[in-house]
Amino acid sequence: MAAPQKKRTPKNAQSLAKGQREISISEFFTKNRHLLGFDSPAKALLTTIKEAVDNSLDACEEAGFPPRLFVEIRPDKPVNLGIELSSQETKPKNGNGKSPNKEDRFKLIIEDNGPGIVKAQIPKIFGKLLYGSKFHSLKQSRGQQGIGISAAGMYGQLTTGKPVVIYSRTGLDEPAHRFQVKMDLKKNEPTILEGDETIWEKDHGTRIEITLTGSYKRGQHSVDNYLEQTSIANPHLHLTYKNPKGETSIYANSTDVLPEEPREIQPHPYGVELGILARMLTDTKCRNITSFLKDEFCRVGAVTCENILAEAGIPPRRHPRRLVQDDIQRLLDAIAVTKIASPPTDCLSPIGEDLVMAGLKSGVEADFYTSVTRPAAVYRGNPFQIEVGIAYGGQLPGDELAKVIRYANRVPLLYQASACGIHKAVLGASWRNYGVQQSRGALPTAPMVILIHMASVWVPFTSESKEAVAHYPEIIKEMTLALQEAGRQLKRHINRRAREKDALKKQNYIQKYIPFIGEALQEILGIDDVEREEVVATLTDTLERSRKL
Amino acid sequence: MAAPQKKRTPKNAQSLAKGQREISISEFFTKNRHLLGFDSPAKALLTTIKEAVDNSLDACEEAGFPPRLFVEIRPDKPVNLGIELSSQETKPKNGNGKSPNKEDRFKLIIEDNGPGIVKAQIPKIFGKLLYGSKFHSLKQSRGQQGIGISAAGMYGQLTTGKPVVIYSRTGLDEPAHRFQVKMDLKKNEPTILEGDETIWEKDHGTRIEITLTGSYKRGQHSVDNYLEQTSIANPHLHLTYKNPKGETSIYANSTDVLPEEPREIQPHPYGVELGILARMLTDTKCRNITSFLKDEFCRVGAVTCENILAEAGIPPRRHPRRLVQDDIQRLLDAIAVTKIASPPTDCLSPIGEDLVMAGLKSGVEADFYTSVTRPAAVYRGNPFQIEVGIAYGGQLPGDELAKVIRYANRVPLLYQASACGIHKAVLGASWRNYGVQQSRGALPTAPMVILIHMASVWVPFTSESKEAVAHYPEIIKEMTLALQEAGRQLKRHINRRAREKDALKKQNYIQKYIPFIGEALQEILGIDDVEREEVVATLTDTLERSRKL
Repeated sequence: MAAPQKKRTPKNAQSLAKGQREISISEFFTKNRHLLGFDSPAKALLTTIKEAVDNSLDACEEAGFPPRLFVEIRPDKPVNLGIELSSQETKPKNGNGKSPNKEDRFKLIIEDNGPGIVKAQIPKIFGKLLYGSKFHSLKQSRGQQGIGISAAGMYGQLTTGKPVVIYSRTGLDEPAHRFQVKMDLKKNEPTILEGDETIWEKDHGTRIEITLTGSYKRGQHSVDNYLEQTSIANPHLHLTYKNPKGETSIYANSTDVLPEEPREIQPHPYGVELGILARMLTDTKCRNITSFLKDEFCRVGAVTCENILAEAGIPPRRHPRRLVQDDIQRLLDAIAVTKIASPPTDCLSPIGEDLVMAGLKSGVEADFYTSVTRPAAVYRGNPFQIEVGIAYGGQLPGDELAKVIRYANRVPLLYQASACGIHKAVLGASWRNYGVQQSRGALPTAPMVILIHMASVWVPFTSESKEAVAHYPEIIKEMTLALQEAGRQLKRHINRRAREKDALKKQNYIQKYIPFIGEALQEILGIDDVEREEVVATLTDTLERSRKL
Repeated sequence: MAAPQKKRTPKNAQSLAKGQREISISEFFTKNRHLLGFDSPAKALLTTIKEAVDNSLDACEEAGFPPRLFVEIRPDKPVNLGIELSSQETKPKNGNGKSPNKEDRFKLIIEDNGPGIVKAQIPKIFGKLLYGSKFHSLKQSRGQQGIGISAAGMYGQLTTGKPVVIYSRTGLDEPAHRFQVKMDLKKNEPTILEGDETIWEKDHGTRIEITLTGSYKRGQHSVDNYLEQTSIANPHLHLTYKNPKGETSIYANSTDVLPEEPREIQPHPYGVELGILARMLTDTKCRNITSFLKDEFCRVGAVTCENILAEAGIPPRRHPRRLVQDDIQRLLDAIAVTKIASPPTDCLSPIGEDLVMAGLKSGVEADFYTSVTRPAAVYRGNPFQIEVGIAYGGQLPGDELAKVIRYANRVPLLYQASACGIHKAVLGASWRNYGVQQSRGALPTAPMVILIHMASVWVPFTSESKEAVAHYPEIIKEMTLALQEAGRQLKRHINRRAREKDALKKQNYIQKYIPFIGEALQEILGIDDVEREEVVATLTDTLERSRKL
């Protein structure tokens, strides 16, 4: 049955060379789809919805529209209805162990009230990997790579052969368009099957339909859980969600105020490297090194610029393209030893201590809540900010590992927990110091939910699927500091509870004996009943006050 | 100092469209270098050496040369020697906290006796991401993506501005070449700085020099550890290694026999999906569906092919390009319910139980060793095979977490342990069943080293840096089965040890009393001293024999 066995001859350089080929980015990701979050049918469903919701929220916020989203997971009948599925099911053959209907087919619909997409951009946004607006700008946003939504379309196409359907309208005076887009998997280029004007009731917005094979499940990694956590971190979002059973849930917005829009910043000098600096010097339109440093970086004013150039020994009027490699290395060394202010932080949009706390309270029933928003910090020149919330006690199970809820730029991260820097920070936070049990190498065992949010102009994820934060030491350190701060508050709570319990025990004990002391005093001192009761009241009162102190 | 604060105006679709751009793969990876394994200076050093050694081993094996490798990490002086480094060091300024010399600069040299590289291919192999020979073939190899070595060159260029230097010679009758290659970071294309013939003493082979900033460290994640683990899994490798201090270590080969060369296979029908199948049907040179199925897949013979086509209701002579989407879906459903033999396994090259055991024995001092090589299994149509080795007891620390050594296609994986499917399988293996302590959510606590090797035609890594295996359920399952098999052997050892200890205790106890029993018998029965000694000897002998049973 197999190909005939041939004698293998060793290869030489010439025969090896024949196999060398360019690999297109779409071929690469088709084979490595787990990098994009499509390694299982359940995850494929979640990833697709996540990418579309991320884009919708980003677009609505940029355009200043309070987002109103509609998400639907609609069961979709496979195209092969012509053959008798039921007869197949009654006499299953011994194939690869999965019936063709085990993975279900769904049409996912995500519709927003955002600004819409101009006609010319639609095919590339949905039919080409590595195409987008957020990659080259330093500003907090959910999307950043230009891969997500086109990858989702690619996965749908791979598993069902169906194109992505897009409706878009950019305003009342503009016509709506309906596109059907596929991806040429070899060339990473869009193929437009349809792109006509259409009638659409919306004034402005985008609607996407992707058909794919997937698996709808409840639980920790589910779409339902993802949407709930999204609404916690985005109180301005109004979301209507229809699950495959046709049940509709509404997550109403708790505020009409959009978060402060993060500002785009220039790169910070501390984050730049020789190769990047060399390219910037070649590409710049600035005509001397002084204006280059001041214009192309943040936090470089006249004085800082003078200091850097003096340290590097480069004349301030030198043309950027006249710097040779030695100069560039000296410039870089000079930057490293010059004091430069940290990058501005209005490029970040943290959730805020109050909303983190409110979110935890709405989702978790506990005795004690605390939250910490750290000041902004910097890794490789990129500003970022860590927030932590802790819920403790109450109805939470005390004999299980603590639950960790992770967010990056307000997007919940549901998969790859143990690969995540957040997980590592929680593992390393020495919980025993805060009165919480922890086995070596494990999460703390406690009635506890820990929420961590990383906001950054560039979140370094461990893969293109954006499920886990990479282990940059600067980031882990900030997370640890935030956890320690929250941990200290938790410890105070745990200690107070222990003290209260202790005091209550003592009080009960003393209270029990006060009447007898009263009687004994009455006997010894010969006081009357009124005096005795006064003594008892005084003693009780003293006890009460001493306990409060 | 910063740019003046401008009032932010909400964006509309037109202004959003202006930001949309294509992102080149080299721009993407420059910004996401942690995906390639370059997120810290220590890791950058390791990743570069790993990629070069992987390529050398693959090439030597393909060409049938027992590999003799030379690896050197040579301290490299920065180009800016003109300025007084020492004066800077004595008066450090309050910069970004790192002196410019904290990350050292190294020239990494990796030289092999492989088949060399034909001249025309050199620039693209070293100066273009996603270019290679292994991506499109299904066959076990260390490299598979066409990213590694060009990424290492890119990192060197980014941090030091230096090109990659390559020496190559394809045979005695051919001239040697020396190339200097850089990468155009915007276009992902090689720039050739030099590519002339040169004099080189080697008959055939390749030598690479990459200059980069890095950090040389000892310990678990070190180059030294990686090279040692590599020599364990590749007993045919002869390696000479010179560290930055100029100390030379030699890892001699323990065998002259190359591992059986893995055979390239066709894809297996069970692993194909609608989109891929549709593309194969368009691209094929076969002129009917029968020869298409038989030629382009493995394990499809005449009978299997007939069964599939009958199930799908497709005529056997139908031209592949005449199948419409409905037909393709039916074909796929038919494949799923048809019994097809598992793919051939001569595409795999496991280390083997004996060599796994020998490797563990050479590296770890313990009481007990065991190893298991599972039969080949399949995930998404890709054959793979799991091997496990366990070393237990002896000098290993008993109160620490077990150490896990991970390999994929004979390459040691040193980073991202907790992100790895191997780690997950070890966590989930219920060690208490095998007499080993384990806290919830943690690795087992025991004097134990666990080695796991995954061999496959396509190892699904969690990122391009190939540090951790993705969590495919089929793979985790096979790992679990292998761990359980080894665990049962370990349990027998632990139980035996416990029984031995117990028996020894009893024996000592009884032995202590046998003389007194002898004396008592002498008294009761009135036997003489000789008879008493006979009785004592008989009792001792009986005890001895009963213990052995």
